[in-house]
Amino acid sequence: MSEIVTSGGIIAGERIAVSESPTNFQAIEAETGLPLSGVFAEATPALIDQACRSAREAFAVMRRMPAERLGDLLATIADGMRNERVEIEHRCRAETGFLPQRVAGEFDRAVGQLELFADLARRRVWDDRQIDPADPERPGMPRPELRRRKIPVGPVAVFGACNFPLAISTAGNDTVAAFAVGCPVIVKSHPGHPGTCELIGRVIAEAVSSKNFPPGTFSLLHGRQPQTSCDLVAHPSIAAVGFTGSPAAGRALARVAADRDHPIPCFAELGSTNPVCVTDAAMQSRGDDISSGFVASLRFGNGQMCTKPGLVVMTTASARALGEKAATMLHEMDPLPLLNANVAKGFDRGTSRLEENEGVEILTPKPQPTATSTLGPYHRSARLYLLHANETTSWSELLHQETFGPVSLLVACDDEDAMLNVMSQFTGSLTATLHDQDGVDEAFQDAWLDIAMQFAGRIIHNGWPTGMEIGPATHHGGPFPASLDGRSTSVGYASLDRFVRPICFQNWRGFPHDHPSH
Amino acid sequence: MSEIVTSGGIIAGERIAVSESPTNFQAIEAETGLPLSGVFAEATPALIDQACRSAREAFAVMRRMPAERLGDLLATIADGMRNERVEIEHRCRAETGFLPQRVAGEFDRAVGQLELFADLARRRVWDDRQIDPADPERPGMPRPELRRRKIPVGPVAVFGACNFPLAISTAGNDTVAAFAVGCPVIVKSHPGHPGTCELIGRVIAEAVSSKNFPPGTFSLLHGRQPQTSCDLVAHPSIAAVGFTGSPAAGRALARVAADRDHPIPCFAELGSTNPVCVTDAAMQSRGDDISSGFVASLRFGNGQMCTKPGLVVMTTASARALGEKAATMLHEMDPLPLLNANVAKGFDRGTSRLEENEGVEILTPKPQPTATSTLGPYHRSARLYLLHANETTSWSELLHQETFGPVSLLVACDDEDAMLNVMSQFTGSLTATLHDQDGVDEAFQDAWLDIAMQFAGRIIHNGWPTGMEIGPATHHGGPFPASLDGRSTSVGYASLDRFVRPICFQNWRGFPHDHPSH
Repeated sequence: MSEIVTSGGIIAGERIAVSESPTNFQAIEAETGLPLSGVFAEATPALIDQACRSAREAFAVMRRMPAERLGDLLATIADGMRNERVEIEHRCRAETGFLPQRVAGEFDRAVGQLELFADLARRRVWDDRQIDPADPERPGMPRPELRRRKIPVGPVAVFGACNFPLAISTAGNDTVAAFAVGCPVIVKSHPGHPGTCELIGRVIAEAVSSKNFPPGTFSLLHGRQPQTSCDLVAHPSIAAVGFTGSPAAGRALARVAADRDHPIPCFAELGSTNPVCVTDAAMQSRGDDISSGFVASLRFGNGQMCTKPGLVVMTTASARALGEKAATMLHEMDPLPLLNANVAKGFDRGTSRLEENEGVEILTPKPQPTATSTLGPYHRSARLYLLHANETTSWSELLHQETFGPVSLLVACDDEDAMLNVMSQFTGSLTATLHDQDGVDEAFQDAWLDIAMQFAGRIIHNGWPTGMEIGPATHHGGPFPASLDGRSTSVGYASLDRFVRPICFQNWRGFPHDHPSH
Repeated sequence: MSEIVTSGGIIAGERIAVSESPTNFQAIEAETGLPLSGVFAEATPALIDQACRSAREAFAVMRRMPAERLGDLLATIADGMRNERVEIEHRCRAETGFLPQRVAGEFDRAVGQLELFADLARRRVWDDRQIDPADPERPGMPRPELRRRKIPVGPVAVFGACNFPLAISTAGNDTVAAFAVGCPVIVKSHPGHPGTCELIGRVIAEAVSSKNFPPGTFSLLHGRQPQTSCDLVAHPSIAAVGFTGSPAAGRALARVAADRDHPIPCFAELGSTNPVCVTDAAMQSRGDDISSGFVASLRFGNGQMCTKPGLVVMTTASARALGEKAATMLHEMDPLPLLNANVAKGFDRGTSRLEENEGVEILTPKPQPTATSTLGPYHRSARLYLLHANETTSWSELLHQETFGPVSLLVACDDEDAMLNVMSQFTGSLTATLHDQDGVDEAFQDAWLDIAMQFAGRIIHNGWPTGMEIGPATHHGGPFPASLDGRSTSVGYASLDRFVRPICFQNWRGFPHDHPSH
C-alpha cells in the first residue's frame, strides 16, 4: 500500500513538514504527464544551512569511526532498500516511465553497489599507504621518515542523474563513495524523481539512526530552483561535490564551487555521444548480430543512458545495411515515454537540429499522428538518421551534442580513412567502441585505437557501451564534455579517490591517529 | 664569461629575436634594484599560438614514445644543466639575491629531481595498471575483461615560483613531471628571473634537439602581462596547467582554465603560513635547540619559502622565552635582499598589517635608518612579532595571509586549550609542526593531531617545515589556501598523477597500443 509522499526534505534525521508555498511542486507521472500524489517544498536557505552545519558536526565523529561501522551503515541501507523494494520501485516506475524490468535491474545494481561499497569501506581500499623509511646516515642531512595515508575530505553535496534514480541518485554512486570513506552526504533530490529520492532518503535516515550515526550524516533537500543547488555548493561546510547531469548545469555548479572563499572540487559527469565504429568485414560477417545489438543498446532505458551509442561511424554500404535492419526492428517497437518534459523537449530539439542539417536522411518512418494520439505527452518513437560525411560537414556540434532518448546518427563514410577522420574530430566521450574482424582489420584497429585513446575514457571491443561493470578497473569519465576532469571516475572502486585527500606524516614513528580497526 | 641574455622566447626550438617594443622589459638585480643586462620581449598572441600548436604536434609523437626515451630527455637536461652550472648560478644569484650556498643547494636539488624523474619515467611508475578478469560464466550476463592503464593528457602550461628559480621553474617540478609521462611543456618564464629561465630553456631546447624530440616538445615564453598567461591557459591545445604562486594569480588562471570551451584542470600550489606548536615541556627541555632551529628555518632563503614557519603557537611563557632567544639571534644577522620589488612591497604590507593589530608587539629592534641606508632597496631586517591570543582576536586573516620574507608571528596563549583553539581556526596549510616531549605531552599531541589533520597536508614532529624530501610518500599540497585542490601534490612521485588520465579497455585481450618498452 503506497503512502502519499509529501516532504519538505529530511534534515539531519528530521522529516520536514510542507507548508503552503507558491514554490511547492509535485512530481509528474512520465506515462501521462499528470501530477503524482504528494507535494515537495523547495529547501529554504535556513534548511540548507542547518543540513550543512549538521553535516560538519557529523563529520567530526565520522572521520574517526572504525571502517567496520562505515561498512555497517552501507549494508544497513542496502537491507532497508530491500525491505522497501516494492514501494520504491512502484514510485520509481511512476516518476520515470521506465519499464518494470529496467527499474528492477537498476534496483539490483543499486543494492549491489551498496553492498560492494560496504565491503570496500570495511577493507579501506581507498587508503593506499606509503612509507619512505628514514635514513639518519644520509650524507649532508639525515632523511626523516615519511608516511602518507589518506583521510576523508568532509561533507559531500550530491546531485544525482535523472536517468538513474536508484544507482546514480540518493543512495547511488556518489553517496556510497562518500559514506565508505567517512564523509557525510547532503543529497539535493532530482526534481524528476523527488518521491523516489524521498523514499530512499527515509531508508538512509533510518539506517543512520539505527546504527547510531550522528544525525547530520545524511540530509535530503528538495527543490527545483537552480539557486537552491548553488546555495548548497556555496555553503562553507561542504568539502566536495558529486554531480551527474548536463554540461550546462555541471559547469554552473563548478563555477560556484571554484568561486567560493575556499574553492572545493566539483566532480561532474556530463555529456557523451559514445561513437561506435563498425568495419565492413565485421558488418559482412555478423551484420544481424551487430544490428540487433545496436538496437538493444540504443533502446536500453529508452535511449536515456549516458553510454547510449549516439553515433555509428561506418562506410556507406555498411551504414545502409545497418540502417535498414535497425530501422525495421525499431519500427516494430512501441514508443515508450521519456523521463519528463525536459527530456522530451531535449529530444525534440536534438532531432530537429539533426533534421535541419543538409544531407541528413531519416531512416525510421515518421510516426503517424493517428498512431501517436493515444500516447502520453512524453512518448517518442525511435529515430535513426543517416548523414553522409563530407569535407564540409561541421562536426563539432553533431559529435558532442548528446540527445537523451531513442535516437542515433549513422555517419556514412566513403572509406576507412574517412571513418578515421570523423573519429579524430571528437574531443571527449565516456566511451568509444569498435566492431572489427580478426585477421582482416588489424591495421585499421591500430589507427582507430590511437585516435580513440585521445578522447575516450573506456574503449570497447566487439561489444556495446551500455552496461558497465563496477570493479577495480572501472573508469567512468573522460575528457570534456564527458567529465569536467577526465582523470576522475564517478563509478567503480576509484570513485572513492574523489572524496579523500593524502596527508603526509613526517617523523611520527607510525601512522598517528590510526583507526581502531587498523 | 657571461653572455648578455636577450630573448623573445624559445618557440619550438627557435630562439626569437627581440625587436623594439614598449612592452620589452629587463630583469632587475635583487641586490641593487637596478636593471641587469639583456632585454626580454613580451610573448605575442601569435607566438603563444605557435608554441601551443607545435606542442600539440609534438604530443602526437611523444605520447607513443618508449619510456626509455622520455627518461633520456630528462637525463640529458640534467647533464646540460651541469655543463652550464656556472652561468646559470651566476644569473640566478643576480636575479634573486639568494646567497651562493642557497642557489647551489637548489641547483643540486633541481638536477637531482631531473635525474630522479628520468628514472621514474623509465620505470613508468605513474602507470598503475589494473586488470579485472572476464567471467564468461557469470549468471545473467557474461562479465567482460576490463584493463585500466594511464595515458598522458597533452601539452602542459607551466608557471614557476619566484622563490625557486631552479627547482620550481623552467626545468622544475611541473616540467619534470610532464616530460616524464610524455607531455610537452610550455613554460611562461617568471618575470622575476627571466634570464635564469632563458638559460635553462636553452638547455632544454638543446636536449630536445639532440635527443631528436619534436621541436614543439618545449617552448619558453617571456612576459609580464597577466593577459599573456591567460592567453596561454586559454589556448585549445593546452591540456593542463601547473602553477606555483599567489592565491590571487592562481585563482585567476584557474578561472580561465574552467571557463574555456573545454575546461582543463589547473593544479595550483598557493599560500601557506605553516603553523608550528611548541609545548612548554619541549621548550623547557630543549629551548635553545628549538630557538636556533626556528631561526634557521625562518631565515632559510631569507624567509621566502612556501613552508616558512610563519606562526608559532605557544604558551605565553614559552613564547617569551623563544621570542627573546630568537630576536637576539636575528638581530645579529645581516639583512639580505628580498627577491624583487613585489616581494619587498608584500613584506612591507604584511608587516604593517601585523603592526596595526592591537596587542601586537615587535620583538626585534627597529632597524636604524643609518644602518640601512647603505643597503639595496629590497633588503629587509628580520621581524618577529608577538600577539597575545584572546577571544576577540580576528584570526582568519592573521592565520592565512602568507607574507614572504623573514617575518614570523609568535602567538602567545594562556594555556594548551587556547593553543588548540588557535590551531582549530586554520582552514588550510601545506604543513603543521609540533614540538613536544615524550612521556609528558601524549594527551596534547593526540588532540593537536586531530586538529592539524583537518587543515594540513604534511604534519611534522619535532622538526621544521622547510626542507622537503622528494619521494613516493611526499605530499606537497593541502586544503585551500595551500592548494586549489588539496588532493594533488606539486612535488614528489605522486605529482606525476596530475598529468595522466586513466583509460579503460574492455574486451581487448591485452593492453592495446602498449609501449615498446613494456
